[in-house]
Amino acid sequence: MPDENPHHEQPSGIYLISPSGAVRDPQTIELAAQRLKAMGFKVAVDRTALAVHERFAGTDAQRLAAISRALKQKHPVVMATRGGYGLSRLLSRIDWRAVADSGKTFIGQSDFTVFNLALLAQTGAVSLAGPTAVFDFGGKNVDDLTQALFQEMLSHDLEILSFETEDADPVDARGVLWGGNLAMVASLVGTPYLPRVPGGILFLEDVGEHPYRIERMLTQLWHAGVLAEQNAIVLGKFTEYRATAHDNGHDLDAVVRWLRQTVKVPVVTGLPYGHVKVKATLPVGASIGIATEAGLAHLVLQEHHH
Amino acid sequence: MPDENPHHEQPSGIYLISPSGAVRDPQTIELAAQRLKAMGFKVAVDRTALAVHERFAGTDAQRLAAISRALKQKHPVVMATRGGYGLSRLLSRIDWRAVADSGKTFIGQSDFTVFNLALLAQTGAVSLAGPTAVFDFGGKNVDDLTQALFQEMLSHDLEILSFETEDADPVDARGVLWGGNLAMVASLVGTPYLPRVPGGILFLEDVGEHPYRIERMLTQLWHAGVLAEQNAIVLGKFTEYRATAHDNGHDLDAVVRWLRQTVKVPVVTGLPYGHVKVKATLPVGASIGIATEAGLAHLVLQEHHH
Repeated sequence: MPDENPHHEQPSGIYLISPSGAVRDPQTIELAAQRLKAMGFKVAVDRTALAVHERFAGTDAQRLAAISRALKQKHPVVMATRGGYGLSRLLSRIDWRAVADSGKTFIGQSDFTVFNLALLAQTGAVSLAGPTAVFDFGGKNVDDLTQALFQEMLSHDLEILSFETEDADPVDARGVLWGGNLAMVASLVGTPYLPRVPGGILFLEDVGEHPYRIERMLTQLWHAGVLAEQNAIVLGKFTEYRATAHDNGHDLDAVVRWLRQTVKVPVVTGLPYGHVKVKATLPVGASIGIATEAGLAHLVLQEHHH
Repeated sequence: MPDENPHHEQPSGIYLISPSGAVRDPQTIELAAQRLKAMGFKVAVDRTALAVHERFAGTDAQRLAAISRALKQKHPVVMATRGGYGLSRLLSRIDWRAVADSGKTFIGQSDFTVFNLALLAQTGAVSLAGPTAVFDFGGKNVDDLTQALFQEMLSHDLEILSFETEDADPVDARGVLWGGNLAMVASLVGTPYLPRVPGGILFLEDVGEHPYRIERMLTQLWHAGVLAEQNAIVLGKFTEYRATAHDNGHDLDAVVRWLRQTVKVPVVTGLPYGHVKVKATLPVGASIGIATEAGLAHLVLQEHHH
């Protein structure tokens, strides 16, 4: 999958913050910090990373203060401990210019999608969609490929991400990569926090959403004019929903067929991304290339070797 | 609750169509037709009302044709047999001008919210949010109040709808009544099918949506500028979600408190509307008045006695 070309140094430190849901088990953070240290990173944990208010990792004021502290501390990478829910209600109170100007590399997924996208919409700055501390580094095992892709993205060594795809439409294009969790992307439609990305490469995943709901969210993006202006739609993993007898064949494949019939944009399936163990780290807001051949898709993250 | 003043004649006939989910048990339609006839309506059932394609009541083409037939048949009222999912993907293929010009009174709820709102957005025409054949008239019992409010709305006899409210904010205003199922309202944000209703009276309900999801959908309406420009937000019933220990107090009351703190618009709870037995029939797109007093809220549907 990734090119093995480790001639860049990886960033030296990671700062962990909790902008969304409360961390349920502090030991997962402890374990994640150990894992990240073993990879060669210095690690610092924000002082309210374990705070709890209702279902959130602290009050809105506490989580906003954690984001502000993350901009000022010394480590170049800021990672969300986990997703959940909580960033949506903070979007209008985050100083996006200050986030972009900090030069920090932000990374997270799921609820963090709204952070990735609001930052892009408000400033054009790039951030990462990828592992979170609890989900990817705080459990029993760490997936080797997830770890390798994470490290290579941080050290700018990943030039092409290739993955198997069963039925990708032919495409050979460039565009700005953007997207993330479909429910969170859809939740930004019509707000100042959805980036406008004509000619973009839109990647989507979701968890626990029934196929009819996935279709309904895609329909919103379609009716809002978002889908038609993309150069490609790249589907990651849609997991943990429960089909019912009433679906009567309206399954995920039916939704993808409907999407292809409805929107005349190349659809590429199989992206290793989502609420799954094996996940790529993806640069949201970066200009990339995409190409498919028989059974294989390539995301060209860097055009030239340095 | 309603004024008893039956000096208008009620419309003579109801035409049943299935624009959304497949009807699971044909006997519910049979029973609903009998109930509606017993109320004094003539009833006709569209010829594909019982069609099935995947989870839908027929293919997209069949459901679109059913809507077209409904415009041309003789009965003045067109009622959806049920909700489910299916209208979203038809919105760009419905001739909304023809729907408005037909002069028919359309009624439904849940998935039908997107029909109510798209019609209002595209033409300004009024339609009804209220009972559906299967849910309200096709089951073991029919709720007396639901039936009375439905008949009085159709015969224009309902002047004031009053309901108990535990904690309504003070309000005395006029505006266009609009809204419906929150998930469906949110799914239209950023599309040509969400009406712009400054100074409106927005009513919302939902079923099977967890409080954090209800808040996330409200957040989308907030960030899109929809909530701040309303004269009142009227909450119906939010039912059938399952709270978890992780919510840790982030329940529906917490969401309503957050809504009040976040948006400086009067919030009125207790509207008898939702996925519940006792429901009002509401004119979506009509200019109405709203007023609250101790423990009571009033929707003034008609200013003057005729």
